[in-house]
Amino acid sequence: MRMYDIIVKKRDGGELTKAEIDFFVEGYTKGDIPDYQASALTMAIYFQGMTQEETATLTQAMVDSGETIDLSAIEGHKVDKHSTGGVGDKVTFIVGPLVASVGVPVAKMSGRGLGHTGGTLDKLESVKDLEIEMTKEKFIENVNTHKLAVAGQTGNLAPADKKLYALRDVTGTVDSLPLIAGSIMSKKLASGADSIVLDVKTGSGAFMKTLEDSEALAREMVNIGNNLGRNTVAVISDMNQPLGFEVGNANEIKEAARILQGENVEDLRRLSLELASHMTVLAEVFNSYEEAYEALEANLENGKAFQSLRTLIESQGGDVSMIDDLDRLPKAAYEVEVNADQDGFVSAIDAESIGIAAMYLGAGRATKDDVINHGVGITLKKKIGDEVKAGEPLVVLLSDEKNPTASIDKVKESYTITNEKVEKPTLIHNIIK
Amino acid sequence: MRMYDIIVKKRDGGELTKAEIDFFVEGYTKGDIPDYQASALTMAIYFQGMTQEETATLTQAMVDSGETIDLSAIEGHKVDKHSTGGVGDKVTFIVGPLVASVGVPVAKMSGRGLGHTGGTLDKLESVKDLEIEMTKEKFIENVNTHKLAVAGQTGNLAPADKKLYALRDVTGTVDSLPLIAGSIMSKKLASGADSIVLDVKTGSGAFMKTLEDSEALAREMVNIGNNLGRNTVAVISDMNQPLGFEVGNANEIKEAARILQGENVEDLRRLSLELASHMTVLAEVFNSYEEAYEALEANLENGKAFQSLRTLIESQGGDVSMIDDLDRLPKAAYEVEVNADQDGFVSAIDAESIGIAAMYLGAGRATKDDVINHGVGITLKKKIGDEVKAGEPLVVLLSDEKNPTASIDKVKESYTITNEKVEKPTLIHNIIK
Repeated sequence: MRMYDIIVKKRDGGELTKAEIDFFVEGYTKGDIPDYQASALTMAIYFQGMTQEETATLTQAMVDSGETIDLSAIEGHKVDKHSTGGVGDKVTFIVGPLVASVGVPVAKMSGRGLGHTGGTLDKLESVKDLEIEMTKEKFIENVNTHKLAVAGQTGNLAPADKKLYALRDVTGTVDSLPLIAGSIMSKKLASGADSIVLDVKTGSGAFMKTLEDSEALAREMVNIGNNLGRNTVAVISDMNQPLGFEVGNANEIKEAARILQGENVEDLRRLSLELASHMTVLAEVFNSYEEAYEALEANLENGKAFQSLRTLIESQGGDVSMIDDLDRLPKAAYEVEVNADQDGFVSAIDAESIGIAAMYLGAGRATKDDVINHGVGITLKKKIGDEVKAGEPLVVLLSDEKNPTASIDKVKESYTITNEKVEKPTLIHNIIK
Repeated sequence: MRMYDIIVKKRDGGELTKAEIDFFVEGYTKGDIPDYQASALTMAIYFQGMTQEETATLTQAMVDSGETIDLSAIEGHKVDKHSTGGVGDKVTFIVGPLVASVGVPVAKMSGRGLGHTGGTLDKLESVKDLEIEMTKEKFIENVNTHKLAVAGQTGNLAPADKKLYALRDVTGTVDSLPLIAGSIMSKKLASGADSIVLDVKTGSGAFMKTLEDSEALAREMVNIGNNLGRNTVAVISDMNQPLGFEVGNANEIKEAARILQGENVEDLRRLSLELASHMTVLAEVFNSYEEAYEALEANLENGKAFQSLRTLIESQGGDVSMIDDLDRLPKAAYEVEVNADQDGFVSAIDAESIGIAAMYLGAGRATKDDVINHGVGITLKKKIGDEVKAGEPLVVLLSDEKNPTASIDKVKESYTITNEKVEKPTLIHNIIK
């Protein structure tokens, strides 16, 4: 078999066989196939696409290129959740305890990475003394005992994807639907869950800007999951503005805890219940979405979900008093209001710019050596559809600097205010199974 | 400027600017742009194409990437001829002397390369003592004195093309019309001719199998030439069977010499006159194609064209007695007939297979260390449209082996004989200016 023939076959619109895809992925991972042939193939895939079967085969080959996490020692049906990423997305901290509260095991492994705010692990570390490094045995014991544990991801998962993504990133082939879907799903599948719920964001602040593109990506991923024996459901949710009102690290944990304490932050609570309902139905704890939704909502109100969060923190050595009294979480020195220049209605909030403003404050990591400041962040005071008067605050910045001009400018840039009344955006656009 | 943005622009169907194309060609030649980005770009070009202006700009950039040959010391209008390549194509040895015989300077630089038979230089070296290595000064003096000289190509012409072609060859992007056209034309333009006549082959034995594709390639090349200030004409000629009757080295020289001595080998003589007519009109020696054709045909009959060949050989130290008496040219030990199995009419001769059969005899070079055997070759006895009886020879192999079975099998494979009468193929399909 020759890589040249595989490139030409795809270039001419052919369907690659399992043998051909395996030859490519194995050869590329080992370094037998050079980058210049891999980039020619990915550009051909960009133009010619891949069938569902090819995409699933590619994904499996990328899973097989490295280690996989074996969760079989955990009792029960393991369900994982994955979000395609957005600003203010602290759903993991709500959904994890919520799902655990009805007995579904949640074995969350997460990375740090770069971003406007910290990753899941960084956010959790806002809680003093909380330990996310642990042995595999301890991790599994925690999940079996408490139904919930969060740990740093170890192991060389899907190295083929890592290498190929880095190449696609510099050769203009990131925007290929089957390749995006395969990349995301290879990492999820290597993580060992039995079923997967995907939160596919759509809108100006999402990777996919249009509903059509988001649905297409969701369909690709659901097909891959189902093709490879994992029940997979995708929720298409709105990312035309940050989710909830808090962006940062400690303040995202705070907002998540408040939801678990029964508070209603409209979009955040609704999306968390939606995702958790699909997860618990896939885990076969409930027979229907409606039944799941009702039970989960009850656990937000009766304190059981909040208790799951407390247990998580206690079991990993964290200072639970910070969760019982949220004012004890880290908080920056200054509160800086950014005010509206005019009367009107908020018609758009550029989530990306809000993220960048948070990063300027120190909430995120531009390079892997940057240190996260857990206490800084942004609290939105107005969201799309809200009426605002000139001089009223749009956001409050939590800053360790008295006058964080770069962040202030970025926030101002991100808000659009019009004279006409504006509808609130739809939160949940579609469910794809 | 970033190569990434250039790839994405082309991927999305944009037209690259001169600055972008120059950035790519210069950076790639120097090694600043890696192969994997160049292969992604060429695959994007494969799918999105290039405008005439982009193609001309790319060609010029490839010319500028290396040395160019300065022919300004040669008096008169220099016209070059280029063939896209076929089997039995000895037209250069006819057209060169013929054009020189009417006073047009022919400064032919040629390479050796790999192929079924030798290249122009190898074929010429069938003549004993003929020297093709000479100083640039001697070469120019020869052209000025005798109107004709042939020398080995020196200098680093269009290195960007060389590097890019090698990459395209292993990444499935050879078959891109603008890239093929740019590759051919960059080398021609670097060779310094004022005008160019292209012999674009079409048919089963050509790189382009269909008339449509051949015309499209011809149009691309003519556009490049004209865009870059060289009058360019393309003749689309048939390559559904070998040209003439002889394939090899000495026997191709022999057939060419016979044409110059006034013999009529239908397709070979006709095509040579066609190409020479366009060349001499471009050189402004004649006012019209008809006038040129008539004068050139006269020089085949009156011995002037043959005298030009003699002068070439004498001026480069060759044994001219071999041309005066063609039987003195090298000739292999055995004549092996390959006979027809059945009565009928020849309906197809796979030129590629005839070429391979010649290579098996030793006429060509599969690797650069192979030594050419000038005396071996193939004489066709039947061409398309000819009637044949079972047992009659289809070809005679000139072989240094008594029983060259591989060549015999290959020749048998290449002939198709049918019961119905077959038309001779059209020789000249189209002229593109």
